[in-house]
This record gives sequence, structure tokens and C-alpha cells, in this order.
Amino acid sequence: MRVLAIHERSVPISRYQDPVLPSGGLTTSIVAIETDATRDGRTVVGYGFASIGRFAQGGLIRERFAPRLLAADPRDYTDGDGNLDPSRAWTVMMRGEKPGGHGERCVAVGTLDMALWDAAAKAGGLPLHRFLAESLGGRARPMPAVPVYAGGGYPYPQDDVARLGDEMRRLADLGYSRAKIKIGSAPLAQDVKRIDAAQRALPHGGALAVDAMNAYALDEALEAAAALSPLGLWWLEDVCDPLAFDELSAVAAAYPRPIAAGEALFSVAEAKLLDQHGGLRRDRDILLFDPAHCYGLPGYLRIVEALEASGWPRAAFWPHGGHLFTLHVAAALGLGGAEVNPLCFRPFGGLSDGAAPMGGRAAPPESAGIGFETRAELAALFRSLG
Amino acid sequence: MRVLAIHERSVPISRYQDPVLPSGGLTTSIVAIETDATRDGRTVVGYGFASIGRFAQGGLIRERFAPRLLAADPRDYTDGDGNLDPSRAWTVMMRGEKPGGHGERCVAVGTLDMALWDAAAKAGGLPLHRFLAESLGGRARPMPAVPVYAGGGYPYPQDDVARLGDEMRRLADLGYSRAKIKIGSAPLAQDVKRIDAAQRALPHGGALAVDAMNAYALDEALEAAAALSPLGLWWLEDVCDPLAFDELSAVAAAYPRPIAAGEALFSVAEAKLLDQHGGLRRDRDILLFDPAHCYGLPGYLRIVEALEASGWPRAAFWPHGGHLFTLHVAAALGLGGAEVNPLCFRPFGGLSDGAAPMGGRAAPPESAGIGFETRAELAALFRSLG
Repeated sequence: MRVLAIHERSVPISRYQDPVLPSGGLTTSIVAIETDATRDGRTVVGYGFASIGRFAQGGLIRERFAPRLLAADPRDYTDGDGNLDPSRAWTVMMRGEKPGGHGERCVAVGTLDMALWDAAAKAGGLPLHRFLAESLGGRARPMPAVPVYAGGGYPYPQDDVARLGDEMRRLADLGYSRAKIKIGSAPLAQDVKRIDAAQRALPHGGALAVDAMNAYALDEALEAAAALSPLGLWWLEDVCDPLAFDELSAVAAAYPRPIAAGEALFSVAEAKLLDQHGGLRRDRDILLFDPAHCYGLPGYLRIVEALEASGWPRAAFWPHGGHLFTLHVAAALGLGGAEVNPLCFRPFGGLSDGAAPMGGRAAPPESAGIGFETRAELAALFRSLG
Repeated sequence: MRVLAIHERSVPISRYQDPVLPSGGLTTSIVAIETDATRDGRTVVGYGFASIGRFAQGGLIRERFAPRLLAADPRDYTDGDGNLDPSRAWTVMMRGEKPGGHGERCVAVGTLDMALWDAAAKAGGLPLHRFLAESLGGRARPMPAVPVYAGGGYPYPQDDVARLGDEMRRLADLGYSRAKIKIGSAPLAQDVKRIDAAQRALPHGGALAVDAMNAYALDEALEAAAALSPLGLWWLEDVCDPLAFDELSAVAAAYPRPIAAGEALFSVAEAKLLDQHGGLRRDRDILLFDPAHCYGLPGYLRIVEALEASGWPRAAFWPHGGHLFTLHVAAALGLGGAEVNPLCFRPFGGLSDGAAPMGGRAAPPESAGIGFETRAELAALFRSLG
């Protein structure tokens, strides 16, 4: 099996369902990896995309990582039977990369890695979660359906609290009893109002997490921790700079309920530092590392296994991302759960068209590969890559 | 003063003077920032380049950072008199960037930042080190000439020890009594032979540092520390993964002579972690942060000032890079010294054509800007950007 061509394009994305609202000029990269394999009479093409919430990586993909794959001997990225082996392809992409500097390139590699897994699972005729369970062997812990929550709740420039309540009711109607909203950009008193409105809008028995998007300085983080402690939040996320582990540790000492961290850490080296110096508690805290941002699944597996070796349960991992790829990964590895973005980052976030969580869980699609084709708008976007 | 156009191109670079030797496919980006200012009848154009030792950043420059500068209102990147203010331009470039993920983009921003300082100093009719001393005011500590050492000593695929000795003698002939060579890719016994050959080739009273290029696992690092302790090395650099601070700390506890670190850390957040957890000793150890890799001079200043506030002397800073920009920065800030790459990373490394260190020190050029024009081959390369 051979990689014949890699197509790539940058596309805008938005935090909001309403395309009129400005969203910081966010972009992402879409890629299609064309192979010489066929399955059921069709050429196997793998699809992937880059960051949800940061920026496209077209330059690094075109100039550094795709050329390494295209120039490689196919024996370097296939297994003994000639099938595409994404773990070996990952080693090809990382040739000559230096230690340190875990930003941007980790997303570029993760983008291509996602498409490589899609292609490999399609060629094998399996949905990705089953393909992973087979190919990872004892490293997998397959489960049929994944606990999920809905991500969203970005501040609205107008009628913020009312629109946030509407959004949460919409998510509840879609079957989500657990959700996460953003805080940290408004004054704390306003964020407490937002939290109250969101909690009221979710169904009885639901849970609300909040994400401060790394906005707080230490004093603000401690003030927020004190104000939010009594509110019964599911978790408090990204309270300070992602590498300010002493600050995170101080917040953890002051905030008894769960804290979530790791969305903006991209390597096993940073994950170990978080574990060693972040003051997190293995009995309750949440790890958000995003497989697509952490050099793809091979990089993510290193993080999961390094932290597992130091005593973290897999149930602590709830990967950021909110799309079908993370759902497959969570199902195959037996993680705590996964984010789903039903309304934002369209057309990338969310489950298959028409699918909804049942009893707080969602199953990944059973079509071959990741199943991006089960989302009509996303499938059309990928097909436009040619 | 207004930025009119930004030109950019990727070019190959080599660790070796001999262009035949393979050098890992390294590349760098060159940029020219064209302004509407004139000085002495000529348009002011600022020049910069990216990584020395990693890869080009053309995609991030073209797709993310140059467009922000070009789209900005000039009042956002000029001072009250309408002169280009690189610190304000830096804020424009960093608009919307998220915390965390300090790789690649830090070099892309640093590349443009270098060219912005070149343009600003040229427009002011001053060599950069004097322009910085004026514009930074009390944050500067100007000194007329900078202690320097020659970087080089990469392993040769054939006749390694003999060619290394020749290279060190060549550096000594060029006026360098201090040099640094690479270790870590050969077995330790071979590296000890290389060190011995290099030390013998340097003049009496010289000093040799060694750079392990982050190659060692902990047990290898401790073994190397034990073997190298008696050799009287100036410093031992980059002994393990740049973020493995517990490993670095173990090496520091076992190695009494100076240790150097920080070349592969790119942000003030990582610098603080190195300081807090790396076990380094403020009375002897060396900090290698590279201004062009750490989001440019504004990012580098944050690192210098954060570590100074925690007790580090400026004399501990010996920035990586080996070119004229770092020489100006070291002269303006009163740092310990600077690397110079007289033979490698041509045409970027080294002093002005014909210049040589005197008594272990080198002065930055006195032409306006960084003075890349004092290097004929480099000036021609920049001019080719059009």
C-alpha cells in the first residue's frame, strides 16, 4: 500500500453556530491522503483535519511533513503484509525532528496521522475503533459506547446570558445532559450568572463544567476558585497559563472539586511535567490532552501510557476535540469519555448526522474508517479536496 | 512609517563548511520587510532569518504572521513620532495567539521580529546595539564588545577526529580561543577522544564546551557526566530532553562543573520551569535561550527579566545562534557572551567579513541596522528577495 498524493487546504472555523459572530479568525487544515489501495471497488482515501480552536497548519504540512511521507519507501510505512501502518508512517514523518518545541508541528503531524488512520481502517474494512482495538492489542481497552458531554458556551457579544441559556436548552434537546461552557473573559460576577443560567437550562441530573481558557493570572484564578467552589461544577478547566504548574498547584490546593488540564500541552514531556508539578489529584482530576494536537495517536498513546504508569486511571482522560476521531480513540482505549461539539466548529464537531447520545453515551459510527462520510456537510468538504 | 511588503523564501543550510556533507535537510527562512521610510536616499528594508539548526517557517510567516502585520493600522506598530516600534509590531503579530504550544510559531515570529529591528535601527540611522540601548533605556546594559566562542564541531562521517582537530585549529587561526563541539551521537569513548583532540587543538588558555544535543537518556547522561567531569570542560550542554527537568536536575547533582541549558526552550513559561525544576546553579550554569527562536527580542527580554528577578545574573546568558543579531543583543543587554558560527550555517553564521575577535571579544558592526550588509554573501542572498 502506497501513499500516492496528499491534498490540503485551509478553511475558516467558528466557535459559534451563528456564522455572523466573529470568532478570532480561527482556521483549520483539511487533508486527503490518496492511496493506491482499493476496497469494494473504490480507491482508499483517508481524511483528517487539524486544530479545533487554533489555526491551520498548511505550511508545515506542505513543506515538511507531507513531503517526508511522499518521498519515503512504502516499506517504511507498511507492515509485513504491505498494509499501511500509521505508527510506522509517524516515525517517517518525525525523521530529523529535534527534541523540544512542541507547538504547531504537533498539530500538523496530528492532522496527517488522523488521515492515515482513516485510510488504514478503510483499507482494513473496519470502523476505526475496531481497527485500533485489533492493531493496538493489549494496549486497547475497547468499550461499545463512550460517555460524552457537549462543548460550547462561548460568550455571545449580545444578550449573552439569554443566548447561553438557549444554547444549553438546545443541547439538552439534542440529548446532552452534560455540557461545558467558557468563562474567564468576563468579570467573575458575570461568569457566575452565566454558570447559573447554564446549570438551570440543563436537565435534572446533568452536569456543567467550565473552561477558563487559560485566561487567569494566579490571583484571579484563586478568586475564581473560591467563588466557584460552592457551585457544584463538574470540573474547572484551564485556569491559568498551561505551563504555570506552580499556579495550577496553588489552585488545586484551594479548590476541592475536580480540575481539568492538558488541552494546551502537546507532548509526553509536558504531560510528565504537569503530573510532577501541577498538583493534580489522580482520584478526581481530568486530563484533556487532544490526540489530534499531540502529534496524533502515537503521541497521545505515549501520554496515556506514561501517566498510567505513574498512577493515573484511563477514566481520567477526556480528550478535547469534540469530533468523531476522538470518539473512536476514547472507545478503543477505554477512556473516561469524550467531548462532542454538536453546534460549534461546524462541520467538524459532533456525531454522525442524526445520531444522538443515549443515556449520556455515544457510539462511534460503524462505517469503515473514522466515518466522516456519515456527516454530509463534512463529507462534501473533504470531497472538494479532489 | 508603514510596512509595505514582506518577502520570504526558504533556503537550505548546513552544519558543515563542506557542502558535500549531508546535514539532515535543514532549512531556514529569509525575510525582507519593505517599508515606506527612506534613509540617505534609500528605502529602508529590514532583513531577518529563522532557525539555525531547525527548519524554515515559510508557511507560518506567509499564512499567519506577515498578514497580521500587513493588515494592521500603522498606528498600531509605530511610536508617537511615527517610527516603527518592533515591540508594538510584536503585539500585532501575537494577536489571537493562544497560550501554550511554544514551537515553530515562536521561530516564525522571531524571524519577522529580527527584520523589524533591522528596519527600525536602519530608519534611526543606528547600529542595532546602539538603537536597542536607546530604545530599551534602563533595561539595557550596553557593553562595547562581547565575549564570544566559536560553535561547530559536528561529527564528520569520515576521519572524524582528525577533521575535528583541523576545524579547531582553523578556528584558533581565526582568533577563537574558546569553542564548542557536539557530542552524544557517538559512543562515549569516541566522544572522549574527540574532546581530547579538540582541547589539544585550541590555544593555551582556551576553553572547550560540549553540546550533547539532547541525545542522552538519564542513565547515559549520568555516565557521560561521570566520564566528562575530570576533563575540565567549559560547560556541558543539552544533556537530556529539553523538558526532562528531573533528569537535568539529577545530572546537575552529579556534575560539579558548569551545565548549559535552554537552547530548545522557547518561552518564558518554559524558562521559569527550567529555573524552578532543572536543578541549575545560578553561580555557574549557562542559559542558552536564542532570541530569534523565543518569539524574537520581546520574548527573549521576558525570559532574561524573569530569570534575573529570580536571581540569575545576566552574565549567565550566552544566547545560541552564532550570528550578528545575537551579537547586537548580547552587546545591548550586557549578557555573558554570544556564540559565533564562523564556519557553519553559511552564510548566516559569523562576524562581518574580515572581522575577528580580539582578546576573546567581538564588537557588533557599526553600520545601521544589524549589519547583514557587512557580509557579502549574506547581503546578496537577502537582496535576491527583491
